[in-house]
Amino acid sequence: MNYILERWESLSASSGIVRFFDINLRSIGQVMFQNNPLTGLLFLAAIAWGSYAAGVPRVAIAGILAVVVANMTARWLNADSAALHSGLYGYNGILVGLALATFLSPNALMWVYVVLGAAVSVIAMLGTANAIKPLGLSSLTFPFVLTTWLLLLATYGFSGLKGAALPTGDVVIAFQPYEASPLKLIELLQGALNSISQVFLKASGVSALLLLAGLAVNSLAAAAFALAGAILAVLAAHLFGAESELVTGGLLGFSPVLTAIAIGAVFYRPSWRVAIYAMLGTLFTVITQAALNVALTPFAIPALTAPFVLVTWIFLLPRQCFEPSASAAPDDAASARTT
Amino acid sequence: MNYILERWESLSASSGIVRFFDINLRSIGQVMFQNNPLTGLLFLAAIAWGSYAAGVPRVAIAGILAVVVANMTARWLNADSAALHSGLYGYNGILVGLALATFLSPNALMWVYVVLGAAVSVIAMLGTANAIKPLGLSSLTFPFVLTTWLLLLATYGFSGLKGAALPTGDVVIAFQPYEASPLKLIELLQGALNSISQVFLKASGVSALLLLAGLAVNSLAAAAFALAGAILAVLAAHLFGAESELVTGGLLGFSPVLTAIAIGAVFYRPSWRVAIYAMLGTLFTVITQAALNVALTPFAIPALTAPFVLVTWIFLLPRQCFEPSASAAPDDAASARTT
Amino acid sequence: MNYILERWESLSASSGIVRFFDINLRSIGQVMFQNNPLTGLLFLAAIAWGSYAAGVPRVAIAGILAVVVANMTARWLNADSAALHSGLYGYNGILVGLALATFLSPNALMWVYVVLGAAVSVIAMLGTANAIKPLGLSSLTFPFVLTTWLLLLATYGFSGLKGAALPTGDVVIAFQPYEASPLKLIELLQGALNSISQVFLKASGVSALLLLAGLAVNSLAAAAFALAGAILAVLAAHLFGAESELVTGGLLGFSPVLTAIAIGAVFYRPSWRVAIYAMLGTLFTVITQAALNVALTPFAIPALTAPFVLVTWIFLLPRQCFEPSASAAPDDAASARTT
Repeated sequence: MNYILERWESLSASSGIVRFFDINLRSIGQVMFQNNPLTGLLFLAAIAWGSYAAGVPRVAIAGILAVVVANMTARWLNADSAALHSGLYGYNGILVGLALATFLSPNALMWVYVVLGAAVSVIAMLGTANAIKPLGLSSLTFPFVLTTWLLLLATYGFSGLKGAALPTGDVVIAFQPYEASPLKLIELLQGALNSISQVFLKASGVSALLLLAGLAVNSLAAAAFALAGAILAVLAAHLFGAESELVTGGLLGFSPVLTAIAIGAVFYRPSWRVAIYAMLGTLFTVITQAALNVALTPFAIPALTAPFVLVTWIFLLPRQCFEPSASAAPDDAASARTT
Repeated sequence: MNYILERWESLSASSGIVRFFDINLRSIGQVMFQNNPLTGLLFLAAIAWGSYAAGVPRVAIAGILAVVVANMTARWLNADSAALHSGLYGYNGILVGLALATFLSPNALMWVYVVLGAAVSVIAMLGTANAIKPLGLSSLTFPFVLTTWLLLLATYGFSGLKGAALPTGDVVIAFQPYEASPLKLIELLQGALNSISQVFLKASGVSALLLLAGLAVNSLAAAAFALAGAILAVLAAHLFGAESELVTGGLLGFSPVLTAIAIGAVFYRPSWRVAIYAMLGTLFTVITQAALNVALTPFAIPALTAPFVLVTWIFLLPRQCFEPSASAAPDDAASARTT
Repeated sequence: MNYILERWESLSASSGIVRFFDINLRSIGQVMFQNNPLTGLLFLAAIAWGSYAAGVPRVAIAGILAVVVANMTARWLNADSAALHSGLYGYNGILVGLALATFLSPNALMWVYVVLGAAVSVIAMLGTANAIKPLGLSSLTFPFVLTTWLLLLATYGFSGLKGAALPTGDVVIAFQPYEASPLKLIELLQGALNSISQVFLKASGVSALLLLAGLAVNSLAAAAFALAGAILAVLAAHLFGAESELVTGGLLGFSPVLTAIAIGAVFYRPSWRVAIYAMLGTLFTVITQAALNVALTPFAIPALTAPFVLVTWIFLLPRQCFEPSASAAPDDAASARTT
């Protein structure tokens, strides 16, 4: 595998076109913190399958268009080339593209929206990185969340765009208690896998396995924390009495999965203390996911990965309490995401 | 013109009363980033006319009272005298005064509110400037937005204050599509002019022309970007299918106008790249205006210039991508607004 | 009194158990900025009485459990030991415990929530302190507000937790004007005392007197500003026409009380200018309390001490305008809370 990657790298160095492919693949891998084109390829396969299986191939197409537009925008802005080559200006873009095509009805303006959103996500990424660099934090998926929230909210004021799959606005009401039923092992497994695939906005066991494979080729620890985080999230959500459909659909688990990877396998040097800390963070992300689902009810938009961003920032700020990982150099927010 | 300004400046230097007039006029000019008493005078004429034509002269009076209170508060706080003389402690105050008198029914407590809001706007300005100085940003109209939002929200809990002109609280519902109708040239012109005059919370073509004149006497580029931004905003809002009344009333255009001036003519050294960047920012401000209108529906308060502040901050943060303008010295948030 | 405190301090230095008692008592005192175990003891008596008198002894128990868990978490995280000994990692924890037990129905999951919330409050405290240190600010009760808001919001999505005492979600509607009635002296007194005791989430005159005594043993100025702030808040709320029940119940006054102590007696060197500034801040906190009560209506959660945090941060940021107090060393956010 290393041989293939080395050959690929030398090809990228000699050809502008291969380099651009490489950047876009790494961008897709960076959604889960992996700076590796092979990871990106496996993630892309997961996206394509999830999108095809759900009968909406346009979602994958919008994602690909968005990541390409994002990286071209970053070039036009003369963004830092090391960060660009690591895929750090594209991972928000692909998420913007996937989310817009998932929540909006397809028409010409939706594609305008995808291009515009992808371009703005890069500016938001550059801005966020500058704003939080003094705090030693990484931008995570904040630029994606901010850009997509604004674009989705605006559709309620524009007759040219229809949020067919957006939630309905309502006042906050307590969730009605349901008949307690034990969580079957098969549901636990299904919920955990869907939690992983929902990072890319689709529920699919096959996609989840492709994503785990993509993580494993670059970092076994990341794959392990993703799976452990997913299982913990499903168990916790069930224990607290969350709606069964949300739990098995992975809709309370995708943010905790990202938190588990970030705290457990990316930013801190692995240890038992870090593993316990990651567990606490994962657990609190489940609660924050439920909280933001409620808080966004009046606005009729989805929480996206905001719970992951919020909790991971809170848990990364007290960085004096743990040793940073070797790859998370404190002097560069960008390289902190490079494994 | 220069001769008059020089005479005025020497008068100001010798007389405390003239200086105080000068400061208040510059404060009014700074709403659109112009540190020029003549600009302030033309803006004041625009405010007076807009307020008189709409049958609410108290709005202009509240604005004048507020700017005077704000500058007196800044003096009492021993605020930086260069910034004070540039009008940087008064532009939020006048906006607070205009907004409170626009949205609230007139009574004694409303005037207490105006005085209190003007004083707090200065503290919020000093605080914001300190908080964002490390990021190389200017405060823009954030202190106005923050202070006014809190004051307006509180009226729903106070029987002594009535928000007669405030929007009604509701859950978020999709805007109903309407019969598509082409935008007539006259409506485009009307919408663009109203977008400019709505910066001071009134729809008036005469006021818009006075404001453009005020911009032009200090900076032709600012006037050009204001007009271009207004036209682009109206076209974009119409294209996305925004409500016709909002478009022609200028209610989706006043924030984009400010974004266009800020990015295109104030903070970056003018170039084609900057002009394209300003266009993208202006376009995204239209979307953000629609988004915040929706997001604020449950709170029953207006977005004010929050979309301008949010988008301009996002677009100014990646400052490594463009050259700063000569006047936007990075070591002083205050002088960054001085042209 | 000093003799007792000296004896206690030497006992604490020699015994780990006494030290841990000491830390937890100081944590309770730090809710109102007092680094003094005797203050903490009197505050604890106030909490116990308020909780017992209201027929909910579990509230006091949850508070005590939470402060202990918080300080143990801080130890596990190897948090700064001077700050730990000053009680700075526990004051958010006790508030989390009191709030959760006040708003939620008692069951096993509620106690899980208390432990989890107390632990996370420490991480949020460490994170907030790092984030705002460059601004020269203290964390105040922001970690408490953030953690508790998320935990309370999430209960609407969990059938295992019931927010029996939470407000009901609704769209924002104007407060209906009521028959004006003069504020009787007895109501003013009652409102002022309840404003003080509501800092610990209970309305009780006895508790208020114990809290004032606790303040007075460490700082007469703090006690004076607490009382003056409470009276001013009640008068202002009544003048603006707030609901009588909220006013006399102290529900618009507890945040202003904290603002008055913080600005008037903790962070700035006392002077007439500072006293006027503290008055303005107290007044604006009343408005912000009303504003946040309205803003949180769609979310069906209480404002807690968010108005105090927001206004005090705004008023502490322009620190060039006033001299800092001797105890508020600018190089350490932690010590800034130590009197």
